[in-house]
Amino acid sequence: MTAAAMGDPGPCKLQFAPFNSALDVGFWHELTQKKLNEYRLDEAPKSIKGYYYNGDSAGLPARLTLEFSAFDMSAPTPARCCPATGTLYNTNTLEAFKAADKKLLLEQAANEIWESIKSGAALDNPVLLNKFLLLTFADLKKYHFYYWFCSPALCLPESIPLVQGPVGLDQRFSPKQIQALERAYDNLCQTEGVPALPYFLIKYDENMVQVSLLKHYSDFFQGQRTKVTIGVYDPCNLAQYPGWPLRNFLVLAAHRWSSSFQSVEVLCFRDRTLQGLRGIAHSIIFEVKLPEMAFSPDCPKAVGWEKNQKGGMGPRMVNLSECMDPKRLAESSVDLNLKLMCWRLVPTLDLDKVVSVKCLLLGAGTLGCNVARTLMGWGVRHITFVDNAKISYSNPVRQPLYEFEDCLVGGKPKALAAADRLQKIFPGVNARGFNMSIPMPGHPVNSSSVTLEQARRDVEQLEQLIESHDVVFLLMDTRESRWLPSVISASKRKLVINAALGFDTFVVMRHGLKKPKQQGAGDLCPSHPVAPTDLLGSSLFANIPGYKLGCYFCNDVVAPGDSTRDRTLDQQCTVSRPGLAMIAGALAVELMVSVLQHPEGGYAIASSSDDRMNEPPTSLGLVPHQVLDQYEREGFNFLAKVFNSSHSFLEDLTGLTLLHQETQAAEIWDMSDDETV
Amino acid sequence: MTAAAMGDPGPCKLQFAPFNSALDVGFWHELTQKKLNEYRLDEAPKSIKGYYYNGDSAGLPARLTLEFSAFDMSAPTPARCCPATGTLYNTNTLEAFKAADKKLLLEQAANEIWESIKSGAALDNPVLLNKFLLLTFADLKKYHFYYWFCSPALCLPESIPLVQGPVGLDQRFSPKQIQALERAYDNLCQTEGVPALPYFLIKYDENMVQVSLLKHYSDFFQGQRTKVTIGVYDPCNLAQYPGWPLRNFLVLAAHRWSSSFQSVEVLCFRDRTLQGLRGIAHSIIFEVKLPEMAFSPDCPKAVGWEKNQKGGMGPRMVNLSECMDPKRLAESSVDLNLKLMCWRLVPTLDLDKVVSVKCLLLGAGTLGCNVARTLMGWGVRHITFVDNAKISYSNPVRQPLYEFEDCLVGGKPKALAAADRLQKIFPGVNARGFNMSIPMPGHPVNSSSVTLEQARRDVEQLEQLIESHDVVFLLMDTRESRWLPSVISASKRKLVINAALGFDTFVVMRHGLKKPKQQGAGDLCPSHPVAPTDLLGSSLFANIPGYKLGCYFCNDVVAPGDSTRDRTLDQQCTVSRPGLAMIAGALAVELMVSVLQHPEGGYAIASSSDDRMNEPPTSLGLVPHQVLDQYEREGFNFLAKVFNSSHSFLEDLTGLTLLHQETQAAEIWDMSDDETV
Repeated sequence: MTAAAMGDPGPCKLQFAPFNSALDVGFWHELTQKKLNEYRLDEAPKSIKGYYYNGDSAGLPARLTLEFSAFDMSAPTPARCCPATGTLYNTNTLEAFKAADKKLLLEQAANEIWESIKSGAALDNPVLLNKFLLLTFADLKKYHFYYWFCSPALCLPESIPLVQGPVGLDQRFSPKQIQALERAYDNLCQTEGVPALPYFLIKYDENMVQVSLLKHYSDFFQGQRTKVTIGVYDPCNLAQYPGWPLRNFLVLAAHRWSSSFQSVEVLCFRDRTLQGLRGIAHSIIFEVKLPEMAFSPDCPKAVGWEKNQKGGMGPRMVNLSECMDPKRLAESSVDLNLKLMCWRLVPTLDLDKVVSVKCLLLGAGTLGCNVARTLMGWGVRHITFVDNAKISYSNPVRQPLYEFEDCLVGGKPKALAAADRLQKIFPGVNARGFNMSIPMPGHPVNSSSVTLEQARRDVEQLEQLIESHDVVFLLMDTRESRWLPSVISASKRKLVINAALGFDTFVVMRHGLKKPKQQGAGDLCPSHPVAPTDLLGSSLFANIPGYKLGCYFCNDVVAPGDSTRDRTLDQQCTVSRPGLAMIAGALAVELMVSVLQHPEGGYAIASSSDDRMNEPPTSLGLVPHQVLDQYEREGFNFLAKVFNSSHSFLEDLTGLTLLHQETQAAEIWDMSDDETV
Repeated sequence: MTAAAMGDPGPCKLQFAPFNSALDVGFWHELTQKKLNEYRLDEAPKSIKGYYYNGDSAGLPARLTLEFSAFDMSAPTPARCCPATGTLYNTNTLEAFKAADKKLLLEQAANEIWESIKSGAALDNPVLLNKFLLLTFADLKKYHFYYWFCSPALCLPESIPLVQGPVGLDQRFSPKQIQALERAYDNLCQTEGVPALPYFLIKYDENMVQVSLLKHYSDFFQGQRTKVTIGVYDPCNLAQYPGWPLRNFLVLAAHRWSSSFQSVEVLCFRDRTLQGLRGIAHSIIFEVKLPEMAFSPDCPKAVGWEKNQKGGMGPRMVNLSECMDPKRLAESSVDLNLKLMCWRLVPTLDLDKVVSVKCLLLGAGTLGCNVARTLMGWGVRHITFVDNAKISYSNPVRQPLYEFEDCLVGGKPKALAAADRLQKIFPGVNARGFNMSIPMPGHPVNSSSVTLEQARRDVEQLEQLIESHDVVFLLMDTRESRWLPSVISASKRKLVINAALGFDTFVVMRHGLKKPKQQGAGDLCPSHPVAPTDLLGSSLFANIPGYKLGCYFCNDVVAPGDSTRDRTLDQQCTVSRPGLAMIAGALAVELMVSVLQHPEGGYAIASSSDDRMNEPPTSLGLVPHQVLDQYEREGFNFLAKVFNSSHSFLEDLTGLTLLHQETQAAEIWDMSDDETV
């Protein structure tokens, strides 16, 4: 085409300006989504669509545009544009992309076009002539998209001699004729209900211009002598050359009409609106000899693979990582790893259930930091921390959301610093921190340091936080601080995941999830959801439903109290092997994910794969079922009694005192009775 | 003492300026170290020592100083200072600190002093009169030190009437006498070999001044009439009052001499050097009536607990976190958690073996980040990363050393960013990063992208890095990248810890550690350290010694090659449950720590606790024992062949090709033979 650009008066053989593929950022984004969520490893060809326009300003290349809408075959074509239907070949690997048999793909497409010409289908639906192919490989780790575009064009058996070289329409038609053509074209579009006609027939004399659909050619061309006139919606801007769509139309014309007519007059219909004034006068018109193709049965050879930016035959690559908003890029990238799990390994994984869950982390220490990190890895977007401690110098090496800087001048509050760090790791997360205390049994709330009012506000705040989240993680460093959230979460039917560390032991567990209130109002239990008779009635304990599972306190024989008083340093800190918190934190999140994936969620039965589940639970598991009842009846007044009392209050309430007495009595009896000792 | 400060001419009863405890930062630091490393949970009383000085400038309070040297009973007393011996009661808890029976402690100390007076031991060793007590609780998490100091002073049965009020020595002694006193005192110190004399006897007339040790009182006082003169090394500065040490000395004097003498003249010996000129002229001298105590058997009542800053009876607290260098504070704090493990849970834990180990992390991705974090938790101070990748947007949520900011403008190199992050977490770490590639079998090193020279440099660099570290972690995302470091580490006898992830499976293992070269030069194997006959010779495989264990490649039947070619996205990335890397990373480090704790280190036997160890290893475990041999003989030339070849080179070398052929033959036979299929 450089010849034209250089002012060459025009060749004596017809040449065509090829399409430039114009693949919008939106297209690649949508391809990414399709690949991740739908295609996954499927390499089967996919139908897509593009469009082209005949009203571009001079200087713009003819473009076949694919946008985000390319994957929606029922999406409307933009106003005044012509549709083109394509086939997407998206490979799983760069190697497959490179190895794709492009000759074969082109031949297949050419054959389809040829068949539609021979069968007449293209006369009924001329869009069948507008085929394209798109071979792609999406490197979603780097946001590099490799592609090779092809607009297949059947070749006429010989190059096409020009009978009359291209001239502007205004040199051939009178203004009146031009106006009549405009009107006739618009009317036909309107009648047909299409935004544009890619191919049409034209008949004119000095007084009138008529246009018609291809399928009516027989009637329409009646009375024509040696030549007919055809119109093509032309995306090309060049004064001397038609655009690519004409090629397949000319083959159709040669096949259909070369037996009746010697030549064809071609009107490259170009339709531009400049400063509010529409004009088609810059359309070009020329006449070519029609090659004899009426009876050739074989598909002609075809061309159409696009040259790359260097002008050679080769694929192109776009690097979208450079032009994408980094934060959005981060979000997509994070999704990628998660969605890869669904491609092959766990196709049934319901990621939405995980990603959308709102997690409340009580404790932002060693466990809290590791749980938060694992939640981020799973794509959880809503994470809230509660902690009342400040970051100390020993924390950063074990608590992976903090750094040395956070320890200076007394240390930042952990809950706030943890939330800030999550934002720094991944700006798309919705992380909040609450620097607050959790009232605890045996830690009086009527002292000088904690007033009753403060405790009441803390309880209310905690109730609101638990209410507004889906899963509550207990990640504190004392036993008694887990008590209140256990009770509130049980009352609000929230899934509780509990993790606690020893030196080289840990516990990671879910609490039982009591049946919804309307159903289970008769139950006695707190997070201890079932009356003893209920369990005793079932003979086998192989599969315990989620609503019958206990909580952290169910098997305890000592009520929670102040465990921090009178402790040596190594009893105050959780002294544990450094790797343990990572293991327990990770398992806690994996447990949550597994529970969420179960169709019954928190009501999922406990797995029976472990033989120990076949043993009936001991009666100790079912003791303190009076707590939730009291909490729901008396609210904060009951809680205040618990906070201010020593162990004995809760132990009296739950019958543990009685149990201790009985056990002691039993032990004494045992020892005196056992003669072998 | 306020009376004196207000210009009061002096009381008619003798009063004493008490000691101010002066506990140096060095003292608290040393206490911290003792507590962490030695005392741990031991609350038994400890002997410590302090000192006081009689040469302070006017205005300074009398101080009993404890420095870092307080715990070393054989440490020399500073020049011109007097020692005091104390007892440290360091409690494990604040509650125990508060509950300590201070009355009882004081009575015990007073009794000891009284006994030393009655027995005469204090005459021989007057330092016995200089006792002190120190009750402490060290909150090492916060660097808050609670303490209560006591310098026990026996009380005379009645308050002591002044016969002559205190005057400056220069008002009583002539310059000549003063000079004579100086000389006599210095001579006695020199004779005794002590920096100062706390208590001494004085005899003087106009022409001479004599001093003597207490134990010679009988000879020395011979001929004295109604009064004797005693000297006390006096830390007090006040013109009207003696310091605290005089109290117990006066009780001694009353007990010893009140039957012979009515009164005692006291010289409070104060010895100041001002602008290079020494002076004792500001010493004070006064005379008091000696109470009758010669025959009282019971220990007098005692006083001495120090008032706190508010002037009341109560403990003091120093918050050292505010004045310590934050980086040093961080180091101490990090040590704390580790050392707490040794207090009670694992007293035999040899932390030095862990803290001093130099770790080379090959791979700074999901596993590398988690391994580094766990190493930091264990206090490891020398961590080096090798990686050639840059941080991409999907990394930070799974690779806990990176943040969103690290991904911008193409991403920072992982190895360098990881090392930087470790410094930010804990400034005391020695972390480095090497942004380099590890040559791999099947990844040719004679291509345009990697030259042979570059590969040679990479191999040399890797050899140097492995040489200069103790433990090599294999944490890469391909199998073949583990090959070269496995071979080099085996050759250099370095402990290798290997971790690799699947979707919900992982492997964490140590490689066998071949016997040192001088001993095991005859062995055939690479990281596969033993000839088949060696293993076959042992009949039971319950306990496999470390030098007989295999490596990552030992049980493979396919040689490592390019596993990244022709892989789909989900095969390129390690797709795994997000919690898995944390678990595997943590376990890898815990494995290293456990191995290091074994007396034989990397040569530790494999535990036989797992029954599977009782099965004899299959012959597959012993196949490729030719690799190390070739590497040590041919070096880089051999490696270059491996990098450039497909699987077949290594498979031919190690006999795997033959094995495959035999297996195939066997399988064919099996199938045709098995009639039941």
